[in-house]
Amino acid sequence: MVGDREEIGRQGGVMDSPAKAMTTQNLRQHLFSPRSVAIVGQSNDAAKTAGRPLKYLRQAGYAGAIYSVNPRRDTVLGERAWPSLAALPEVPDHAYIVTPTAGAVAAVAECAAAGVPVATILANGFGEAGEAGRAREAQLRDICARTGIRLVGPSSLGVVNLRDKVRLTANAAFAEADLPVGRIFAASHSGTMIGALVSRGKARGVGFAGLISVGNEVDLSIGDICAATLDDPDIDGYLLFLETLRGADALHRFAFAAAARGKPIVAYKLGRSSEARELAVSHTGALAGEDDVAAAFLDACGIARVDTFDGLIEGLALIARVPPARAGLRKPTVGVVTTTGGGATMVIDRLAASGIAVEGPSAATLARLTAAGIAVAPARLVDLTTAGTRYDVMKPALDILLAAPEFDLVLSVVGSSARFHPELAVQPIIDSRGAEKPLAAFLVPEAPEALAQLARAGVPGFRTPEACADAIAAALLRRAPKPVVVRAHASHERTGRLLDEREAGAVLDRLGIARAAAVALDADLARPPDLPFPYPVAVKVLSAAIAHKTDVGGVALDICDGAALVDAVQRLRASVAARAGTRVDRVLVQPMVSGLGEVLVGYRVDPDVGPLVMVAAGGVHTEIYADRSLRLAPVDLATAREMIGEVKGLRLLAGYRGKPAGDLGALAQAIVALSQLASDDSVVEAEINPLIVKQEGVVAVDALVKLA
Amino acid sequence: MVGDREEIGRQGGVMDSPAKAMTTQNLRQHLFSPRSVAIVGQSNDAAKTAGRPLKYLRQAGYAGAIYSVNPRRDTVLGERAWPSLAALPEVPDHAYIVTPTAGAVAAVAECAAAGVPVATILANGFGEAGEAGRAREAQLRDICARTGIRLVGPSSLGVVNLRDKVRLTANAAFAEADLPVGRIFAASHSGTMIGALVSRGKARGVGFAGLISVGNEVDLSIGDICAATLDDPDIDGYLLFLETLRGADALHRFAFAAAARGKPIVAYKLGRSSEARELAVSHTGALAGEDDVAAAFLDACGIARVDTFDGLIEGLALIARVPPARAGLRKPTVGVVTTTGGGATMVIDRLAASGIAVEGPSAATLARLTAAGIAVAPARLVDLTTAGTRYDVMKPALDILLAAPEFDLVLSVVGSSARFHPELAVQPIIDSRGAEKPLAAFLVPEAPEALAQLARAGVPGFRTPEACADAIAAALLRRAPKPVVVRAHASHERTGRLLDEREAGAVLDRLGIARAAAVALDADLARPPDLPFPYPVAVKVLSAAIAHKTDVGGVALDICDGAALVDAVQRLRASVAARAGTRVDRVLVQPMVSGLGEVLVGYRVDPDVGPLVMVAAGGVHTEIYADRSLRLAPVDLATAREMIGEVKGLRLLAGYRGKPAGDLGALAQAIVALSQLASDDSVVEAEINPLIVKQEGVVAVDALVKLA
Repeated sequence: MVGDREEIGRQGGVMDSPAKAMTTQNLRQHLFSPRSVAIVGQSNDAAKTAGRPLKYLRQAGYAGAIYSVNPRRDTVLGERAWPSLAALPEVPDHAYIVTPTAGAVAAVAECAAAGVPVATILANGFGEAGEAGRAREAQLRDICARTGIRLVGPSSLGVVNLRDKVRLTANAAFAEADLPVGRIFAASHSGTMIGALVSRGKARGVGFAGLISVGNEVDLSIGDICAATLDDPDIDGYLLFLETLRGADALHRFAFAAAARGKPIVAYKLGRSSEARELAVSHTGALAGEDDVAAAFLDACGIARVDTFDGLIEGLALIARVPPARAGLRKPTVGVVTTTGGGATMVIDRLAASGIAVEGPSAATLARLTAAGIAVAPARLVDLTTAGTRYDVMKPALDILLAAPEFDLVLSVVGSSARFHPELAVQPIIDSRGAEKPLAAFLVPEAPEALAQLARAGVPGFRTPEACADAIAAALLRRAPKPVVVRAHASHERTGRLLDEREAGAVLDRLGIARAAAVALDADLARPPDLPFPYPVAVKVLSAAIAHKTDVGGVALDICDGAALVDAVQRLRASVAARAGTRVDRVLVQPMVSGLGEVLVGYRVDPDVGPLVMVAAGGVHTEIYADRSLRLAPVDLATAREMIGEVKGLRLLAGYRGKPAGDLGALAQAIVALSQLASDDSVVEAEINPLIVKQEGVVAVDALVKLA
Repeated sequence: MVGDREEIGRQGGVMDSPAKAMTTQNLRQHLFSPRSVAIVGQSNDAAKTAGRPLKYLRQAGYAGAIYSVNPRRDTVLGERAWPSLAALPEVPDHAYIVTPTAGAVAAVAECAAAGVPVATILANGFGEAGEAGRAREAQLRDICARTGIRLVGPSSLGVVNLRDKVRLTANAAFAEADLPVGRIFAASHSGTMIGALVSRGKARGVGFAGLISVGNEVDLSIGDICAATLDDPDIDGYLLFLETLRGADALHRFAFAAAARGKPIVAYKLGRSSEARELAVSHTGALAGEDDVAAAFLDACGIARVDTFDGLIEGLALIARVPPARAGLRKPTVGVVTTTGGGATMVIDRLAASGIAVEGPSAATLARLTAAGIAVAPARLVDLTTAGTRYDVMKPALDILLAAPEFDLVLSVVGSSARFHPELAVQPIIDSRGAEKPLAAFLVPEAPEALAQLARAGVPGFRTPEACADAIAAALLRRAPKPVVVRAHASHERTGRLLDEREAGAVLDRLGIARAAAVALDADLARPPDLPFPYPVAVKVLSAAIAHKTDVGGVALDICDGAALVDAVQRLRASVAARAGTRVDRVLVQPMVSGLGEVLVGYRVDPDVGPLVMVAAGGVHTEIYADRSLRLAPVDLATAREMIGEVKGLRLLAGYRGKPAGDLGALAQAIVALSQLASDDSVVEAEINPLIVKQEGVVAVDALVKLA
C-alpha cells in the first residue's frame, strides 16, 4: 500500500543515495503543485516546442516563481533568463528540461547538483534510440541512484495541474485559455494524448484535475506518479492511455490503493495487434507483450479497459457508478428502453459481442409497465417507438426498469427528439439520475445540447453506439483488484535451466497435481524390464537437454509388450542421436493414459507482469485459434473455472452433444495448483502438455519446468 | 439492369393489374419529386406524429400542392382539409398515409381507387405484429397486385428530397430549417436513422440529396427504391442502414447498376449478434440470417460495409475515392504519416485487426524522405514527431508517400496542432487533395474547424480512430460486384426431398467432384460379398430417410475382412432399427480413404440471398470456432482459393509446421464445382462432409443432397 509517509518505489534499483527518501506528499507537491519551477533550455521563440512552457505558464497565470534557464541569452520571451541552475536565487521544486537530447543528461546532473527534487525531460533519443540512447538512459538512472532526484520522462510533453494553473508542458493544447477544471487525473505514455484528452473532454463536459505525459518512465513510472496523487481529495478517478506495461508492479500497487479509496481507473491500451506492439518498441523503447497478457493484467488490477477513444473520455462517469463485478456470477445484464429500435440495436449488437446480456423485462416488470399504461411487446428491448417519445411515457418506463431486479444497468436510447426537444425523452433520464442502479444514455442524432445537459447532471451520455457499448461492457466486466503477484522488470531474454521430465514430475508432486506413473530406465536396455504397471506403455527420452521430444523422434506410444519396448528404445536412441545430435542415456516409461480429452496448462513469469497461469485446448488448435485463457497467478477455484469457461475448445469436455463430461473440477484444481508457483521464485516456466482429463480426475502425462 | 424505360420489379407477385406498369423515371418522380402530395390522416396537432408532415412541408417551402385529407375536420393547422381523396381537385403524385393502423389498409385502397401512383404508409402493426398484422400485409399486397399502386412501408417515417424541398416525413429531425443539400442518397430500414443521418451529417459537412425510411418493404424494397434514383445526375453515392436483407435480389441488381455508373454504396448492417437479429424480427417482421451470410452478400454486391456509425456518415467520401479491389492480390497496404505516434497507433491497431497491412516506406521511399530533409527512423510509421508539425515537413512527406508505389492509400494523423493551428499539418493534407492516390486524415484532438476545412476541400477526415480505420478497411476491401445468382424470397422453412447417398453421389459425378468408390448391397447379407476394392472398408446405411447416419449408429469404419463386414451390417441394422425406428434395406460399402485432413464443403439456397457455397474445417471445430468461409454462388477459382485462406483450421493442410501440404488446388476446384449448383434450381442443399484432402487430389466420402 502506498501511504502518505511511505516512499515511492524506485524501478529496479537500490536506493543507495545519500539524499533523503521523498515522501508521497512531497513528491505530489513537487510534481504537480510546485511553488517554483525552472525551465531548462527555454527558447526565445514561442513557436518552437522549447519555447512553449514559459508562454503557457504565464498565459495560465501560474502564481509561483518561474526561472528560465538559458546560458546563451539574457532574456527569453521578454523575461529574465538565468545562466544556470546554480545561479538561481532559490532551489525550484520542479525543473522542466527542454534542451535537445545531447544536453539533457548534463542538465539532469545540474538539477541534481542544485538539489532540485523533481525534473521532467522533454527530449527523446533514450531507450528507443539504439545503443547510444540506452547509454544515455543508463546515465540518467545512475544520477537518480546517486542523488535521489526523481525524473519524469524522457520524452515527456510535461505535467499539468489545471487547478493550480501549472502548465509545465510543451503540448500545444495547453495554449487554450479556458480549459475546464474537473476531478479526473489523466496519465499517458503518449504526450499528444494529454492534449487530445483536454480538448475532447472539454467538448463533452469532462474536465481534468491534472494530466501528465510520462514518456519513457526511466525513473517514475505511470503507477508511481498516479499513486502520488491518490490522497488528493480533489481527484475522484483516473484515466490512463497506455502503450506498454512497463512498471506493472507499481501500476498494480496503485490500482489496489485506488480501489481501497473507491477511485475508479479506466484505461485505453494500445497493442491489440502485433503491428501496434512493434510500434510501441520504436516509440517508447519498451517491448510490449501479447494483448491477452495486458488484458489479464488490467483485469487483475481492477482497471476497466475500454476499446474506443471516445469510451476512454466518456466512460469514466459510468464506470464510477458501477461497483466491481464479482467472479462466478451470472452474465451482467442490461435493460434497454428506447424510442428507436434501430438506434438501440446498434448498441445491443456491440454489447452482445462483448459478453454482456441484453434481456427483456421479466413478466413482473412487463406487468408493471402495462399497469403504468405503457404498452410494449415482450422483447429483448423496451421499444416505446416514436409515439412513446413523451416525458410521461419515458419517465415511468425508466422508473420501472431502474427498479427491476433483473437488470444491472439500464440504458436509454433516444431518437430524433433529443436534438431539439430534450424535454421529451432526455429530461426523464436526467430526472432519474438519483436512482441506485447505474443509468446510461445514447443519443442517436447529433445532439450536443442534450449531451451537455446529461453531462452537467452527471448522467453518463454517449455520442456513438460504439463508445456506449464499450463503456457499458468495461464498467460491468470490471472486477475488484486481485491479490496476485506482480513481479515485473525481469529480463525479456528467455534463459534458465530446464529440468528433465522426472525432476519436473517432482515439482508436480509438490504442487499436488496427479501425474502418470513413470519409471526411469537406462537406455542401454538389453532385455524387457520389469514394469510396475501393465502394457501398453509409452517411452520417452529423459533429458533436460531436449525440450521438444516429439520433434526429434524422442517419443514412442502404444507399445504392447516388452520386446516392442526394447525395439522402441533402440529406434528412439538412433533417432535422437541423428536428429538432435544427443546421446540418450535414460528413458522414461509410462503406462498409456486415456481420457476424454487433452488440455494444456501452463505457467510463466512474464517479463512485464510477472507470474501468469494459462489454460488452453491441447494440440494445434490452441495456436491456430489463439484459444487460451490467461490470468495473473495465483488464482482461486472460481477464477480457474472461469478460465475453463473461456476456452472454446474445452466445450468438448463439458458434455458436448451428449458425450460424457470430463472432470472440470479436477482440471480447475490443477490450474489453481500450478498457479501456486507464483510464490516460488525459482521456477520461471512450467507447462503440463498434455494434462489428460478423464471422467474422474486429471492426469499429467508430460511436463516441462524451467528454473530461473 | 434497371434502365429508364424498364419496369421496377415487384416482389414475389405477378403483375396482373390493369394498371400501366410504371417506368423508373415515373417512379422516381412520384416518389421523390411529386408535383402534388396528399397527407391522409393529417392531424390538427403539430406535436403529434401525424401532425408533422404538413408542418415540415410548409416550413421547407415545398412548391407543389399539398392536400390534407381528414374527414373529421374542415381545416388542419389552419389550412383546408379535404374529406376524402376522391374529393381532391387532382390526383396527387404521392400520398403519405399517416392514419393509425386500423385505417391504413382502407386508405391505401382509397388511394388506389383514386389513381394515386405511389403511397407511403406510416403505421406499424403489419408483418411484425402477429397473425392480424400479416393479414393486413396480405391485403396491401393484394391491392398492389390488383391496382398497380406502389407502396413504401408500412412503418415508414417518410421520404425526403432536400433539393426539391419535399419533406414528406414524420421524423422530427426535418423540422430543422437549414439542412445542407448534398449528393448522397440515404435509405434506411429504421425511420429514426434518416433523422440521425441528416443531423450528424450536417455536423460533419456531409449533405444529402434525399433520404427514405423504407419500413417493412411490403411492395417497394430498398433496392427498388434506390434503383429508381440511379440516373439522377445529382446523386453521386448511396448510404444504406440495413436491418434485414429482405429484397436481396433487387438490392443486388441495384448494386450492379450503381457500380456500372461508378456510384459507390456504403452500408451499415445490424445483426452481427443473434440478439440483434432477433430484434430485427420484432422490429421489422423479417427474419435475419447469420451475419456472415450478410457479409458475403454485401461483398458480392460490391457494397462497402462499415462497422461504426460514424464510419457510415464519414466513410463514403473515402470509399468513393478507392477503386474496388480485385481478388487474389496482395493485402491492401496503408502508409501512415503522423505528428503523433500514439494517435496513429490507435488507427493502426484497428486496421491490423481488419486485415489491412500497415507497412513502413520502402528503402527507395525512405531515401526520398531523407533527401527531402525529413529524418525518420525506418518503421511501420512515418513519425514526424511533434517537432515535425510544420507545413514544410508534412507537405513533402505527404507528396513522397502519395507517390510511393507500395501504398494503396495514405493516412495522415495529426496531433494537438490540428485544433488551433491547422495551417501547420492539416493544410498540407488539404493541399494534397489532388493526388491520384486516396488520402485520409484522422485528427487526434477535438478539431471541428479543421474537420470542416477537410470536408469542404473534399478530403475524407475522421473524428475517431475507430471510424477512420473502419472506413479505410471498408474502402480497401470493397470489391467489384460479382455475377452471382441472387434468388431471394424463398421460404424460410426447410423442406425438400433428401436424396440417398448413392443418388447424392450421382450429383457429385455430374459436377465432376471425385468421390470414393462405392457399392450398394442388400442389407440381408448372408455371406461376404465380392467387392471391387480391397479391405479395409466402411459400411453405411443407404437411406434417404436418415440424414445423420452416425447419430443412429448407421456407420461402421475400418472393417478388415468379409466376415467382419457381415457382422457390421447386422449390428448396423439392429442399431438403426432401435434408434431411428427404421428398417435398413440397403447399405453402401466404400474403401477406407485416408488423406491429410478433412474438409466440409457445403451449398445451400439461403432464403434471403439465394445460392451460397461454404467451406469449413471438418469436425466439431467448425461449430465451436465458427470457422467457415461463405460466398454467394457460383464462385471462380480465385475466390475459392480466397475462401480456403479464410478458414483458420485449413492452415493445417497448407504445410503447417513442416507437415506435407494437401492439394488445395483440387479443393478449390471442388468448391467451384459445388458452387455450380447455383444454376440448378432443383437442388436446395448439398453437403460434402467429409471431403478428404490428399497430397494429390480430393475425394468426397459422404454427401447429402436435398431437392426443392
